[in-house]
Amino acid sequence: MNDDLRFGLDRAVQLPGPLALDSGATLAPVDIAYETYGTLDADAGNAILICHALTGDQYVASTHPVTGKDGWWVRMVGPGKPIDTDRYFVICANVIGSCLGSSGPATVNPATNEAWAMEFPVLTIADMVRAQAMLLDHLGIERLHSVVGGSMGGMQGISWTALYPERVKSAVIIASTAKHSAQNIAFHEVGRQAIMADPRWRGGAYYADEDPPVSGLAVARMAAHITYLSEEGLTEKFGRRLQDRDAKTFGFDADFQVESYLRHQGSTFTDRFDANSYLYITRAMDYFDLAEDHGGSLATAFTGSKARFCLISFDSDWLYPTAESRAIVHALNAAGAEASFVELSAPFGHDSFLLENAEMDRIVGGFLKSGDGK
Amino acid sequence: MNDDLRFGLDRAVQLPGPLALDSGATLAPVDIAYETYGTLDADAGNAILICHALTGDQYVASTHPVTGKDGWWVRMVGPGKPIDTDRYFVICANVIGSCLGSSGPATVNPATNEAWAMEFPVLTIADMVRAQAMLLDHLGIERLHSVVGGSMGGMQGISWTALYPERVKSAVIIASTAKHSAQNIAFHEVGRQAIMADPRWRGGAYYADEDPPVSGLAVARMAAHITYLSEEGLTEKFGRRLQDRDAKTFGFDADFQVESYLRHQGSTFTDRFDANSYLYITRAMDYFDLAEDHGGSLATAFTGSKARFCLISFDSDWLYPTAESRAIVHALNAAGAEASFVELSAPFGHDSFLLENAEMDRIVGGFLKSGDGK
Repeated sequence: MNDDLRFGLDRAVQLPGPLALDSGATLAPVDIAYETYGTLDADAGNAILICHALTGDQYVASTHPVTGKDGWWVRMVGPGKPIDTDRYFVICANVIGSCLGSSGPATVNPATNEAWAMEFPVLTIADMVRAQAMLLDHLGIERLHSVVGGSMGGMQGISWTALYPERVKSAVIIASTAKHSAQNIAFHEVGRQAIMADPRWRGGAYYADEDPPVSGLAVARMAAHITYLSEEGLTEKFGRRLQDRDAKTFGFDADFQVESYLRHQGSTFTDRFDANSYLYITRAMDYFDLAEDHGGSLATAFTGSKARFCLISFDSDWLYPTAESRAIVHALNAAGAEASFVELSAPFGHDSFLLENAEMDRIVGGFLKSGDGK
Repeated sequence: MNDDLRFGLDRAVQLPGPLALDSGATLAPVDIAYETYGTLDADAGNAILICHALTGDQYVASTHPVTGKDGWWVRMVGPGKPIDTDRYFVICANVIGSCLGSSGPATVNPATNEAWAMEFPVLTIADMVRAQAMLLDHLGIERLHSVVGGSMGGMQGISWTALYPERVKSAVIIASTAKHSAQNIAFHEVGRQAIMADPRWRGGAYYADEDPPVSGLAVARMAAHITYLSEEGLTEKFGRRLQDRDAKTFGFDADFQVESYLRHQGSTFTDRFDANSYLYITRAMDYFDLAEDHGGSLATAFTGSKARFCLISFDSDWLYPTAESRAIVHALNAAGAEASFVELSAPFGHDSFLLENAEMDRIVGGFLKSGDGK
C-alpha cells in the first residue's frame, strides 16, 4: 500500500470520468475531495466508507478547515473508537454536488472556465455513490468491509448495496430512509424557495462577485434545523426561556433562547456552505426512492446483496421516523438479507445520530468487529 | 336592538380607546372591523363570539372581499348549521394587529398620518381579547352565550374566560394550546426571519410605494403551512406524485405535486395578507402562555370562570397536539370548571378544524344548544 494513505488531511483527486449520471448527462472530470484515517491492509480488506449527510463533509474526524471545529463524528471515528482507525482504513469523501472540494456548482465548468453554478447537472444519491465507487477504484479498494452512514449517508449506504452488491460486506444505516416523503420534500422545497427568493441568488450566478445569498440560505437552514430536533428536545433544551433578559421586550429581537439559537444556526451555516450546493443536494434527496428504481419493490433492490445490515433509528426522530427504518428491514427480510435493527431512545430527534449515545457506539463497534475476518 | 345588526357585511367601528396594552403602551383610536350574522335577542343573551386564527379574518361566513372565496368557516356558521345563525347572533372581529380593517401595522398612525408599520405596538393575545371586549361594549353585549375559536382563536377563547370570567357562559376551544412551545416559536421565527430577510421589507416601511416583501412572506407561509398538515395527510394527498409530468425533470421546477401545492399556498397568501401583520400576530402567539400570567398555574387562570368548556383536539395535529388540550382540561378540572373534552380522529393535522368533520359539527352544535336558556 501507499504510505501516504495513513493520514488523511485534505486529500483530493481528479478522476477523468466521464461519470454517467441518472439524468442522462455526464460529468467530467470528477473532482473528489476526501479524508482517510488509519492504514489500508495489504489485501485492501479493511476499508470502511463513511457517507456524510446533507450538510456534512469529508472531515468526519479531522478539523474542519473553515470552522476550525472538530470533525462531525470524531466521537465515533478514531483509534479505539467504535469505528476504530487502529483496525480499519476509514474513508470519507465529500459528495459530488457539495462544496468542500468535490465537483459541484461552485467548481469550475471546464467548458466555460467559470463556476458551474446552475449549469451543474442535477444529481441523484446513486450518482454520488457512483462517484465514490470511482474513488475506491482509484484507491485500489475492491470491496468494503463496511459502508456506514446516517441520514443522507444512510441513503448512500443502502444505494451502495443495491448498485454494487459484490463490493459491500456490510452496511450500517442510521436514522435514514429508503425514500423521501411528501413532508420531507415539502421542508426542502421551503429551503430552496428561501434561497431562490433571495435577490442575491441571481439564478445561482453569484460566485464571481462573492456576494452569495446568505439570507436565503440562513432561512433554509433554520427551517431544516427544526426538523433535526424533536419537540421534546427543543422543550428540554430551551423551553420558553428568555435570552439574557428578565422580561419580554415587546419587540422583534430574539427574546426567546430558541430564537437566538436558530438565528445562530442559520448565520454560522452560511460561512461554511454554498447555497447552490444546498439546492442540488436537497434535490438529490427528494428524488431518492430506492424502490422506485427497482420496479417499486424495495426488496428487489436488495436481492443481489451479500451484505449484512445493521439499522438504527431513534424514537424521537420525526424527520426519518422509525417506521422508515422498519420498512427497510422488512424489505431486507423479504430479500433474505441478514439484518439487525434497533430503535434507540434519545430525546434529540434526528440529530441524535451525531450526538453522544453509548448504546449506538456499542452497537456500531460490535457490528463492525463481528464482521472481521469474514 | 338595532335592525342593522341583522346582516353582517363589512362592519367597522372606530372606538376612541385608549386601549391599555400588556406592553405598557396604549392604542388609540382602536379600529375594529367585524362581521355579524343572525339577530341579537332583546336581552342580548344569544351572542356568540368567534375568534379567528393567525391568518384568518372576520369573514367567517361571508365572502372574502379580496379572494372572493366563501368564508373560512361557512360550513360551521349559518342558518341550521352547528353555530346556528337562526338561533344565535354571531360576531367575528378581525384581531387588532391584523390587516382586514382592524388597527394594525398597515393602518394609519394618527401621530404621523402614515401607516404605523413597525411603530405599531407589539400586542399579546390578551390585548386582542380586550379590544374584542370593547367591541362587545359598543354592541351592548354584556355576556356571551359562547366564545368559540380554533388554533389562535382558542387562545383568545381561554383568555376570554380568564380576563372576563363574568362575561362568558361557555367556551369552545378547538385544536389549541395554553402556551406556545419552543417548536411553535421556532417555526414562527423562521417565518419572521424570512420576511425580514426580504430586501423589500425595509424595516417594515413598504406601504407607501406598494412594494411589499411578498417573497419573504410566501416562504413564511410555506414553512407554516407544513405545520398545519400532518405527515400522513401530506402522504395521502400528494405522496411522491409528480406534477403534470411523466418523469422527473432533473431541474428545479416543481416536479412534485407537494412542491407545486406549497408554492401556490405561498403566493396566493401574499395577495390577502400583510407581512407586518404576520410579524405582529406570530409574536403575540409566541408570547402566549396563559399560566405565566397567573403565577405559573394554568388552573389559577380559570379559578374565577363560570363558563362551561368544550375542548376538541385532533389526533394528527402536531402543531398543537392533543396533550396541549389535555393540559387545559386538567387545569379546568383542578379549577373546578365544567369541561368536556374529545380527541377526534382526522388525517389532516392541525387544519382539520377547518375541514369537514361531522363529529366536530355534532359536538359543537350540541354543546351550544345545551347551554340555551341557562
